[in-house]
Amino acid sequence: MPQPRMVLTRTSHPGNIGASARAMKNMGLNRLSLVDPLQFPSAEATARASGADDLLAAVEQFASLGQAVADCVLVIGASARVRSLPVPLLNPRQCAEMISQQQNSHQVALVFGNERTGLNNTELDLCHYLVQIPTNPDYSSLNLAAAVQVLSYELRMATTDIGSVSASAQMAENQLASTAEVERFYEHLEATLIEIDFLNPAQPKQLMRRLRRLFGRSRLDQNEVNILRGILTAAVKAMASNQRQS
Amino acid sequence: MPQPRMVLTRTSHPGNIGASARAMKNMGLNRLSLVDPLQFPSAEATARASGADDLLAAVEQFASLGQAVADCVLVIGASARVRSLPVPLLNPRQCAEMISQQQNSHQVALVFGNERTGLNNTELDLCHYLVQIPTNPDYSSLNLAAAVQVLSYELRMATTDIGSVSASAQMAENQLASTAEVERFYEHLEATLIEIDFLNPAQPKQLMRRLRRLFGRSRLDQNEVNILRGILTAAVKAMASNQRQS
Repeated sequence: MPQPRMVLTRTSHPGNIGASARAMKNMGLNRLSLVDPLQFPSAEATARASGADDLLAAVEQFASLGQAVADCVLVIGASARVRSLPVPLLNPRQCAEMISQQQNSHQVALVFGNERTGLNNTELDLCHYLVQIPTNPDYSSLNLAAAVQVLSYELRMATTDIGSVSASAQMAENQLASTAEVERFYEHLEATLIEIDFLNPAQPKQLMRRLRRLFGRSRLDQNEVNILRGILTAAVKAMASNQRQS
Repeated sequence: MPQPRMVLTRTSHPGNIGASARAMKNMGLNRLSLVDPLQFPSAEATARASGADDLLAAVEQFASLGQAVADCVLVIGASARVRSLPVPLLNPRQCAEMISQQQNSHQVALVFGNERTGLNNTELDLCHYLVQIPTNPDYSSLNLAAAVQVLSYELRMATTDIGSVSASAQMAENQLASTAEVERFYEHLEATLIEIDFLNPAQPKQLMRRLRRLFGRSRLDQNEVNILRGILTAAVKAMASNQRQS
């Protein structure tokens, strides 16, 4: 997991500092720097940080962004607006990829400007790239901590093995039924449907094909095949026992 | 831009409802539903919504999740924990892709449980898939609005991205069954399983849950629901007619 430095400059609301710390820690990031915050430390920051007050305790404070990123080799600024400056613009995913491919990712800074005014020109001059979170053009004022959350999330996605959290991997927990086992279920199903007079044995094809498609999509495991065949057996047994009783 | 329904169930803190509305609107989403919130409307919700109070004004409220998703064909639950039941698990990107490929995306619901306890079992039973936001295992308690932010962001990325994949788009060929239609099938199934003596009516939960997983995975269309219910009817009729004959 890369540990870029997350830098909040001239933050007005201490609650946003706390919420940003929480968002970072949720995503496994822990290096928070502040440039000239209006109010810090602050009880509101601590409250909003929830269990992430260790990040607040370890905060590095700087008087200017220049000082905060002095040792950095890559500085990416978060920008809500399209800038006239010819700084290359990344989307959050490209930003995360760029950072995760950086060998010295501890020398990367991701910079967030003031809540209302964003990054000023002096700060923009220090950025090699800008990252812009796509938003609704009619309502683009993303909360500061929400922006930190989205970019931290993309960093986590870029650096964790997301392929492992796939539907099929999860399903593999249970032993999937083999083709042969599923075929025996289909035979059992067809025989039962004939017995309960639902299927015309002269024309079984169309209905069985639909049922195959249905069960095929869900990729049955062995336990489920056993349950389904148990139901078929119970249905026929219920017919027979009713016959005997009366 | 698809407009799935975002559903917050049993939310404890009205501020989270407001912050979720803001997160949604930032990403161009506007359909917010609430199931049994502790407190709503609320001044705190309005304050945290910032300029997104139009979403709060248009909120739809429901007494249960079943009612909220009755007309939905795809229900995805946000889950912080790994569940023991084999419900297919998506990451946020897969979730957004699945929703964006859905032709009838207005019939999709994305469901968020209570802040502390998450989704309960009754709510989980209504979910076809779960989506899990990857987090720091040592600090995984994502704020509710932060979770809404991340999933809304992925939805925006999936629908603004040019190169989004559209492999499983052919799923939408047939008219998918709504939650209400599938629930009626489950009721019919449970009644029939009791009748054929397969299900112990005193302990129906575990087996019915397994069967829900199985059929939930395959996402039944209306025609398939009709076929399955036809089979159930035929099974019971076969019992009865055997009784009469003998």
